Amino acid sequence: MIEPITSVANPRVKQLRSLQANRKDRRRERLFVIEGVRLVEEALRSGVALSNLLYAPEQLASTERGQALLARVETLHGAAAATPEVIAAASDTVTPQGIVAAASWPELTVRQGGIQLVLDAVQDPGNVGTLLRTAEATDVVEVFCIVGTADVYGPKVVRAAMGSHFRLPIRQDLTWDELDLLLGPADQVYITDAAGRMPYYAADWRQSSVLIVGNEANGVSAAARERATKQLSIPMAGAVESLNAAIAGSVILFEAARQRRLGRS
Amino acid sequence: MIEPITSVANPRVKQLRSLQANRKDRRRERLFVIEGVRLVEEALRSGVALSNLLYAPEQLASTERGQALLARVETLHGAAAATPEVIAAASDTVTPQGIVAAASWPELTVRQGGIQLVLDAVQDPGNVGTLLRTAEATDVVEVFCIVGTADVYGPKVVRAAMGSHFRLPIRQDLTWDELDLLLGPADQVYITDAAGRMPYYAADWRQSSVLIVGNEANGVSAAARERATKQLSIPMAGAVESLNAAIAGSVILFEAARQRRLGRS
Repeated sequence: MIEPITSVANPRVKQLRSLQANRKDRRRERLFVIEGVRLVEEALRSGVALSNLLYAPEQLASTERGQALLARVETLHGAAAATPEVIAAASDTVTPQGIVAAASWPELTVRQGGIQLVLDAVQDPGNVGTLLRTAEATDVVEVFCIVGTADVYGPKVVRAAMGSHFRLPIRQDLTWDELDLLLGPADQVYITDAAGRMPYYAADWRQSSVLIVGNEANGVSAAARERATKQLSIPMAGAVESLNAAIAGSVILFEAARQRRLGRS
Repeated sequence: MIEPITSVANPRVKQLRSLQANRKDRRRERLFVIEGVRLVEEALRSGVALSNLLYAPEQLASTERGQALLARVETLHGAAAATPEVIAAASDTVTPQGIVAAASWPELTVRQGGIQLVLDAVQDPGNVGTLLRTAEATDVVEVFCIVGTADVYGPKVVRAAMGSHFRLPIRQDLTWDELDLLLGPADQVYITDAAGRMPYYAADWRQSSVLIVGNEANGVSAAARERATKQLSIPMAGAVESLNAAIAGSVILFEAARQRRLGRS
């Protein structure tokens, strides 16, 4: 049996730490770090290439699900056993589950004809991750992130998205000019805005549509306004002036999904 | 002119810090801390009693909105000028805006006949605050927090709720037996559940309804299940197993608001 890695100075640990910490390194290597039983399971299921997988055998074997995963990763090329301390050093989470790996940026085929989601400088990683999870749950066909949006491969986004990276086509670092070339001729391009007159539920989401979600503090950009065909409102009671970006985007995308389900049935 | 407070050891600073840090102190004094121009404005507008208000005159006067607020708080009984360092010491936020105060727990009149929201051990303060903001925006008439839910007067909840505390009746620390006595005879009591058969949008939200949102990790409790008349599902595409509690609750409450608006028009 090969000895487990015991030193946090091991080059494998250093690589994982640099991928956690530095957007530049993630970009150069086109890798990101995934942690925990569930994300590694989902990566394996989706066929994404994993490299530099480290696991703590006893820690991993402490749950039934971890045991099953252990049996798989022990035979994986490039996987190495390590101490829980080494795993913790390579992890971004407070309570690591004994497994961490570098995953290649997924390259997924885009389905046609659904809703495309544009993140227009959404800055909070938790919001970006939550919106990715909502996008997958509501059958969005592709997500485009404009420059200024939190890195979708950053650790907090990956954690909040809970595996959506493996199933949802995402493109990022886009300028608006680049986005123009990527977007097909959608029937409608929607923004939400305090001045919007059309309630989001009055839009016909069975048409091909682009939804642009804006920055938390400043809303959508001038470039987004130029491209919008309709300004939506989210009617609100009380004295609430605005919603968190992830809540607003999710409320609209689930309404779109509702309409599309009912329209299909 | 009275000299501004310059010492972070001042008893006023100590009181604010203890209210920020300790649920027990908030309970005993029935107070909570609000920070920033907007929250103090909203507290004054809603008539909530403020005590121990500290403000840094120059910092506050650096914006137009702050200037207007400064003119009001200078004449307030119990308000005192302090240095920005003292305000920072009494604040929970990273970038305080030069004003902080203790506010009495609001006592608000409950409207009849709308939707009642129950938080069943929702633990994340950000989720609780977001749900309060959504509740206000969707015309929920009252929020009940079961024991185990994050303290609604904790600093993170207060920040995320953005003033909903001043307008939305909230009761907390409730046992289920206490809740039974407080809830009127609602037509329906809804929980969401992976096993739920009825999509949330198939429910008739124009009826008087209770929505129970469960704990992030464990979902709704056995006590909530006993009381539920219907189990709802949120239909999801992809491989998404569950949504964040704040997203799930918000999606359902905005659907309820949509139905109630359309039903009224």
